[in-house]
Amino acid sequence: MNIIEIIAKKRDNKELTEEEIAYFVQEYTKGNITDYQASALLMAIYINGMNEREIKDLTIAMAYSGEIMDLSSIGDTIVDKHSTGGIGDKVTMILMPIMATLGIPIVKMSGRGLGITGGTIDKMESIQGYRTELTREEIIENVKEIGICLTGQTENLAPADKKIYALRDAIACTDNIALIASSIMSKKIASGADKIVLEVTVGKGAFMKDKEEAIELCNIMKQIGKLTGKETVCVITNMNSPLGNSVGNTLEIIETIDALKGKISQDVLEVVQEVGAYMMKLSGRGNNITENKGKIKRIIENGTAYEKFRQLVQKQGGDLQCINNPHKLGKAKYVVPIFAEIDGIVESIDAEVIGSVSVYIGAGRTKKEDKIDHNVGIVINKKIGDYVEVGETLAYIHANDEKKVNGAVENVRRAYKLTSKKVTIPKTILGIIE
Amino acid sequence: MNIIEIIAKKRDNKELTEEEIAYFVQEYTKGNITDYQASALLMAIYINGMNEREIKDLTIAMAYSGEIMDLSSIGDTIVDKHSTGGIGDKVTMILMPIMATLGIPIVKMSGRGLGITGGTIDKMESIQGYRTELTREEIIENVKEIGICLTGQTENLAPADKKIYALRDAIACTDNIALIASSIMSKKIASGADKIVLEVTVGKGAFMKDKEEAIELCNIMKQIGKLTGKETVCVITNMNSPLGNSVGNTLEIIETIDALKGKISQDVLEVVQEVGAYMMKLSGRGNNITENKGKIKRIIENGTAYEKFRQLVQKQGGDLQCINNPHKLGKAKYVVPIFAEIDGIVESIDAEVIGSVSVYIGAGRTKKEDKIDHNVGIVINKKIGDYVEVGETLAYIHANDEKKVNGAVENVRRAYKLTSKKVTIPKTILGIIE
Repeated sequence: MNIIEIIAKKRDNKELTEEEIAYFVQEYTKGNITDYQASALLMAIYINGMNEREIKDLTIAMAYSGEIMDLSSIGDTIVDKHSTGGIGDKVTMILMPIMATLGIPIVKMSGRGLGITGGTIDKMESIQGYRTELTREEIIENVKEIGICLTGQTENLAPADKKIYALRDAIACTDNIALIASSIMSKKIASGADKIVLEVTVGKGAFMKDKEEAIELCNIMKQIGKLTGKETVCVITNMNSPLGNSVGNTLEIIETIDALKGKISQDVLEVVQEVGAYMMKLSGRGNNITENKGKIKRIIENGTAYEKFRQLVQKQGGDLQCINNPHKLGKAKYVVPIFAEIDGIVESIDAEVIGSVSVYIGAGRTKKEDKIDHNVGIVINKKIGDYVEVGETLAYIHANDEKKVNGAVENVRRAYKLTSKKVTIPKTILGIIE
Repeated sequence: MNIIEIIAKKRDNKELTEEEIAYFVQEYTKGNITDYQASALLMAIYINGMNEREIKDLTIAMAYSGEIMDLSSIGDTIVDKHSTGGIGDKVTMILMPIMATLGIPIVKMSGRGLGITGGTIDKMESIQGYRTELTREEIIENVKEIGICLTGQTENLAPADKKIYALRDAIACTDNIALIASSIMSKKIASGADKIVLEVTVGKGAFMKDKEEAIELCNIMKQIGKLTGKETVCVITNMNSPLGNSVGNTLEIIETIDALKGKISQDVLEVVQEVGAYMMKLSGRGNNITENKGKIKRIIENGTAYEKFRQLVQKQGGDLQCINNPHKLGKAKYVVPIFAEIDGIVESIDAEVIGSVSVYIGAGRTKKEDKIDHNVGIVINKKIGDYVEVGETLAYIHANDEKKVNGAVENVRRAYKLTSKKVTIPKTILGIIE
């Protein structure tokens, strides 16, 4: 087999065989195929696409490019969740302790933020001392002891996906359904999941800009799940506006603590309940979604999920003082309110603009190598449907770089669209594909 | 400007601006754009194409990525020629001394072979001592003294093209009209040509597999020529079968010497006359193509072109003894005749197969870094239209690796198609686009 012939085949819009896909993934992982050859093939895949069989084969080849986590000692059915990412998405940090409280063993390996999309691992690292690089043995030990582990991906988890993902980012090949689906599913398979709930975000702050695209992605991922024996449910959520009331790492930890103590914004609650209810269903803890949602709400209200979160933080070396007294978490030097310049009702808050501002002031990365500033971000004070008078605060910028404050203020104000007409609050959950 | 945005634009089949193309070429030449980013862009260009304006801008950007040769001290109108390459193509080595004899100043910078296509520089290096790396100053000095220089490309000649060309080869992006046209024309512009005769080969042993494609390439190159003020004439030639009666470096030098002494095969003569007649026309030495062809034939017959070739070899350090007594050139260890197994008339000799065999036995390269064996190759004993009886020799393999002889013999025999019917000898010159 020869990589040039494989590239030429996909370039000419022909179907690649299972062997050709496996050859590419294995040899690229080993370094026998160069980045520039992988790059040409990825661009050809981007433009000419892949059919379901090819995507399944790519997924499996990437999953098996490293070690597969064996979680059989933790439970019979390991249920995992994944989100395609968004602005202000703190669902994992709130939902996982709830699931663990319900007795569902949680091994959650999350990623870092890239582009306007934040990452759970960056957020958790806002808590002083919290370790996100656990070994396979530590992961299993922790879950056995407290039922939950929330960490970064282990070194040898789908290494082909790591290489391909980094490359895609540098060659304008991120927003492609075949590549997104295979990347997500390969990591879930490699991390030992038996069943998966996928949250697919749609809108200005998401990879998928419209619902049709999202449905296509869901169908492909469900199909991959089927072909690989991993039952998959997709929850499509709205990412036109930021989720919850904060964007930025430390700020989202504070919101997570508030949420687990019962002060949770409606949109976040809806996503937590929906994704959680299906995780419960897949793990055999109740087929009635409405009842499951009720249980989730009660676990938030009775404080046990908050307690589980504290346990998690402590177990992974995080400073519990920061959780008990969130004002001990890091703070930005400047906290600048953004005032409304007209009266009106908030019609929309452009998630893409908010995400870009958060990257601009340092909360996110443009390149993988960039350092982030954990303590900066945006606090959303007025949400969609809120009435605002001139001079009232729409949002706050938390910044450390004085020179960037003005630009950030101007752009966050631009993200807010006010209207004098009645506003219908858009749905948070756009669909379920079971 | 940002390379990721430029890649995304071409990926989405949008037109790139002159500035975007220049940015890519300049920054890639400097190393600020990585190979894998260039690779993704080239694949997007391959699949989605470029319009004439984009190809012209790419050509100019590549030409100006290094120094432009200033040949104004040599003559008012510098005429150059280029061939898109073939199997057994020794036209440059025969034609250039003829043109120099006619007083046309010849600065010919040729390339090396890659894939099944041979390269003039490799061939000339079969002559012991012949130097192919001359400085700009040496080139000009030589042409002033003897009217001709036949050398490799100078170091800083269109460096962007060098990088892009090498990359294309490794990512299955060689046979694309936009990329071929811009590569050829950028080198011709950078090497100081005012007017250009392009020989575009068509058939099994050429990049262009059919005449329609070749015409498209010609039209694009003529258009680039027009837009850059370089008058261009295209001669389309047949490359279904090898040209002349030898393939391989030393073997083609021997054929060149024979040809310049008057023993020239009909197909080689036709290409030499056609390309040469148009070079004469472009340089203002006669508009009558038939008359020009007659002059070329006479210059071969009267021995002055042979004398010019000897002058060229001597001037560039080559051992004249090799020219005077070609048996002093290097020889292969094994010379194996290939016998016909049936009676018949030669209907075709597959140039691609012959080219592949020549690479297989070491006369050519698969990768740029490969070393070649100058003394191996194939001698064509029976040409199209020749009647052959069982046991007569179709061709000879000249090889140094004993183990490769059998495979080579079998494949060369396979390249020959014999028939019992009457054979019409195919045309060598398929068209002129003036």
